[in-house]
Amino acid sequence: MKSIDSALLTDLYQLTMLQGYYEQGMDETAVFEFFVRDLPPERGFLLAAGLEQVLQYLEGLCFTREELDYLKETGRFSDAFLDSLAALRFTGDVHAMPEGTPFFANEPILRVVAPMPQAQLMESRVINLLHYQTLVASKAARCVLAAPGKLLVDFGMRRAHAGEAGLLAARASYLAGFDGSSTVLAAPAFGVPIYGTMAHSFVQAHDLEAAAFEHFAHAQPDNVVLLIDTYDTEAAAQKVVELAARLQGINIKAVRLDSGDLFDHARQVRAILDAGGLRQTRLFCSGNLDEYQLQAFIKNDVPMDGFGVGTLMDTSADVPYLDCAYKLQEYAGIARRKHSEGKETWPGRKQVYRRYAEDGVMSADIVTLEDDVQEGRPLIRPVMRDGRRVQPPPALSESRDYAQREFESLPGELKRLEEHRYRVEIATVLKQLAHDVDLQQH
Amino acid sequence: MKSIDSALLTDLYQLTMLQGYYEQGMDETAVFEFFVRDLPPERGFLLAAGLEQVLQYLEGLCFTREELDYLKETGRFSDAFLDSLAALRFTGDVHAMPEGTPFFANEPILRVVAPMPQAQLMESRVINLLHYQTLVASKAARCVLAAPGKLLVDFGMRRAHAGEAGLLAARASYLAGFDGSSTVLAAPAFGVPIYGTMAHSFVQAHDLEAAAFEHFAHAQPDNVVLLIDTYDTEAAAQKVVELAARLQGINIKAVRLDSGDLFDHARQVRAILDAGGLRQTRLFCSGNLDEYQLQAFIKNDVPMDGFGVGTLMDTSADVPYLDCAYKLQEYAGIARRKHSEGKETWPGRKQVYRRYAEDGVMSADIVTLEDDVQEGRPLIRPVMRDGRRVQPPPALSESRDYAQREFESLPGELKRLEEHRYRVEIATVLKQLAHDVDLQQH
Repeated sequence: MKSIDSALLTDLYQLTMLQGYYEQGMDETAVFEFFVRDLPPERGFLLAAGLEQVLQYLEGLCFTREELDYLKETGRFSDAFLDSLAALRFTGDVHAMPEGTPFFANEPILRVVAPMPQAQLMESRVINLLHYQTLVASKAARCVLAAPGKLLVDFGMRRAHAGEAGLLAARASYLAGFDGSSTVLAAPAFGVPIYGTMAHSFVQAHDLEAAAFEHFAHAQPDNVVLLIDTYDTEAAAQKVVELAARLQGINIKAVRLDSGDLFDHARQVRAILDAGGLRQTRLFCSGNLDEYQLQAFIKNDVPMDGFGVGTLMDTSADVPYLDCAYKLQEYAGIARRKHSEGKETWPGRKQVYRRYAEDGVMSADIVTLEDDVQEGRPLIRPVMRDGRRVQPPPALSESRDYAQREFESLPGELKRLEEHRYRVEIATVLKQLAHDVDLQQH
Repeated sequence: MKSIDSALLTDLYQLTMLQGYYEQGMDETAVFEFFVRDLPPERGFLLAAGLEQVLQYLEGLCFTREELDYLKETGRFSDAFLDSLAALRFTGDVHAMPEGTPFFANEPILRVVAPMPQAQLMESRVINLLHYQTLVASKAARCVLAAPGKLLVDFGMRRAHAGEAGLLAARASYLAGFDGSSTVLAAPAFGVPIYGTMAHSFVQAHDLEAAAFEHFAHAQPDNVVLLIDTYDTEAAAQKVVELAARLQGINIKAVRLDSGDLFDHARQVRAILDAGGLRQTRLFCSGNLDEYQLQAFIKNDVPMDGFGVGTLMDTSADVPYLDCAYKLQEYAGIARRKHSEGKETWPGRKQVYRRYAEDGVMSADIVTLEDDVQEGRPLIRPVMRDGRRVQPPPALSESRDYAQREFESLPGELKRLEEHRYRVEIATVLKQLAHDVDLQQH
C-alpha cells in the first residue's frame, strides 16, 4: 500500500468529494481537460509528455482491500461509499495529443470523459504525471534545438526530485531527442539507451591518476571514457596520450571534463589529444549545463562533441513548475466554467487545429469545440475508449522520431529559443459558449 | 524490476566503476560523506531530512536475479563481476545528523564507511533521497517560522516532480513542522495527518453553488470546509451564512479561498461570517503561497487562520536544487581529496560541533576531524553498524518535535528569514590534513 502505485496517491479532497457525489447519486458523465494556463517567457512552446504513464495508471486504477480497510479506519467514509470504491475501475474515454507534440497555453493535451467519480478521482495523479514529464521534455527540447548534432545524455537522476522523477526524466528527455541517460533503470523500463563513465572517486581511490585510467580502460575496453579533471585537466590529458600508446587494441573513446572554464579546457585538451595522435578521441563535458550553456558552446565553436545535462534539466531549474490544471468542462451534458479571478477556463469539449504556411512552418493554432470542424490539422485524437486503449502504445523511439519531425515545423524564433508568442486563437463558438455559461451559472 | 525500488535506479558509471574495482581487487574500506557545498542566499540554513529513507534503502539493497540477468544481457559486465554483485549487501557503518537538525555549508550530514563497492554503488540514490527531502524540509521550515501558530498543510503533490516527490514532500514538510498534508498515502506510509476539502469541480458540477455546499456538509459533517471562490467569493460567503442557519447540528468548520486578492477577500469574508454569527468558522487559503506570502499575511494582520502551501514548496521553486555532493574522503586508510577547480573538498572523517551562547542561541559550528574532540555539541552520531541500525528509527513525530526545539536556538536573523551567514569554522587540523593530502596526491 505504501508504494507510489497505490490509488491512495491522491489528494484527500478527491475522496471526500467522491463521498459527496455518491450520496447525491451524481455519477453522470463528466468531461475534464488538462491544459497549461500560461507559458513563462523562458518557454516559447511546451512538449506534450507523460500520456503513456497516465494510460497505464488508468488501466490499473483500483483500490485494494488493504487500502479500503485503511480508509474505513479513518472513520471519514461510509461503508456504502467504500463498497462503491471497491468496484471502481476506469471505464471512460480519453482523447489526447500524442507525446512529442509541441503545444501552447490554453490548449488541452488530454480530455477525459467518464462517470464523475472516476474522472474526479484521477485528477491528482494525472496532473502529477503529465506536469513533470511535460516540464522536462520541454526543457530537454530546448537543449536538443540548442546543440544540433551533439551527443546529449541525461545525467540528472541524483538531483531530480526523488526517484520517480529521476526515472521519468530519462524517459522525457529521450522523447525530446536526447541520445540517452545515465540512469540504468531507464533501459529495462523504457528502452532508453544508457551511458556511463567514471566518477572522481574512482580516480581518487587510486594513488596514481594514470593507474586509475589504465585500470578503467581494461575493465571497460569497449567504452573507455576517462574523467580528466580530478586534479589538473591538461596534465591528465597528457597522461591519456601516454596511456593510449601503451594500450594494445583498446581505443580511448572520449575524455570527460566536469569543472573549471570548460571552453578553455576543451581547446587545450583538444590540442593535447590531437598532438598526441588521438584525433578520434571525443570530448564530452558536464557540470551545471543547460540550453543557454549549450548555445554558448556552439556559438563559440568550442571543440566539444557531447554534453551530460543534469540537474538544471531534471529540475527544470529556471521554470520548476508549470501553471497547469485539470478542469471540469462539462457535467451531465451541460458545459461548465470556473471563473475564479485570474483563473477563468474555456468550457466544453475542445479540439486544437494547427495551421501551416506553404513552407511547412506552423502559422497558428485554433482552439475550438470538438464539433466545430476547422481548417488545419486536428491535434487531439482518441487514445482510450470504455477504459481500453484504442491502439497499442507507440514505441518510445517512435514518439521520439515524431517529436523530431514536429521540431522541423516550429517557427524559427522558437527553434532559436528566442522569446516569442506563437499565435493561439480562441474560436468564436468557444467564446460564445463561455458567454452563455456565464449567464446561466450560479 | 521497473519499480523505483530497484537497485538499478543508479547511474551506469557506478556499475562500470564497480567492475573496475572488482578487477583490481579494490574492496578496502572507503569513507564517503554527503554535504552541501554552498547555501544560496535564499536559505540561511538547511534542515537535514531523508535519512530514514536512506537507511531503508541500505537495509534492502540487493540485486534480484532478473536485474542481474538484465545486466548480463547488456554485454558490459563479466560473469565473475555479476556473481559478486549477486552477493552484495550493505555491511558498513553510517553516521549522520538526526533528521530535523539545522545545518550549513560544508557540514557532512551523512558519513558512510564500507567496502568500496558498497559505498560507491549507493551514491546516486543516497543523493537523490537526501537532497530532495532536505530541499523541501528547508523550504517548509521557512514557512513554519514565517507563520507561527497558523495551520499549515502541504497541498503540493500534484505539481511535485512525479509521485515519490509528492509523497516525500508530505513527510519532509511535516518533519519541518507542518500540521499535515492533503496526500492520502502520506498517512498510512508515514503517519502524517491528512487534510482535505473540496475542489472547484464539486461546485461546478452542481447547478447551484448553495446546493454544492449543502451536499458537502451532509457528506462530511465532521469536516465541513467549503471552497467559496468558484464564482464570487463574497456572495458565496453570504450563502455559507444562510446555509449555517439551515444545518442542524453541523458546524461549518472553515471556508477556503483560492484566488484573487486574498488579503482583501479575507477581511470581507471575515466580516460577513462574523455578522452572520459564524465567528467560530475559520478562514483557510491556498494559491501560490510560500514563506514570503505567509510573512505578508502576518505582517498585515490579515484574519487568516490557515494556509495550504503547495507547488512553491514541493518544487522548492526559488531554489529548486542544492549544490550537494557525496564524496570520497578516505580510501584504504588514506585521506583523499578532490580538487577540481571550484569543487575542492575537505578530506577525512569529520564531525561537526555546535556552540551556543549563554542565552541558548547557536553561536558557531566547527567542522573538524572525528578524533579531534572540541568544545560544543557533536551533531553527527552513529546510526548503523555492520549494516544494522544502532537503534530503532524514531517516530516521525519525535523528529518533528526535535526540529521544533532546534528552531528555538536559531539566531534571530535566521528565524526572521533574513539573509544571514551563520559562522562555520573549518578546524586547523582539517586544513592541515587538506594541505598534506594535496602534497601527496597525483
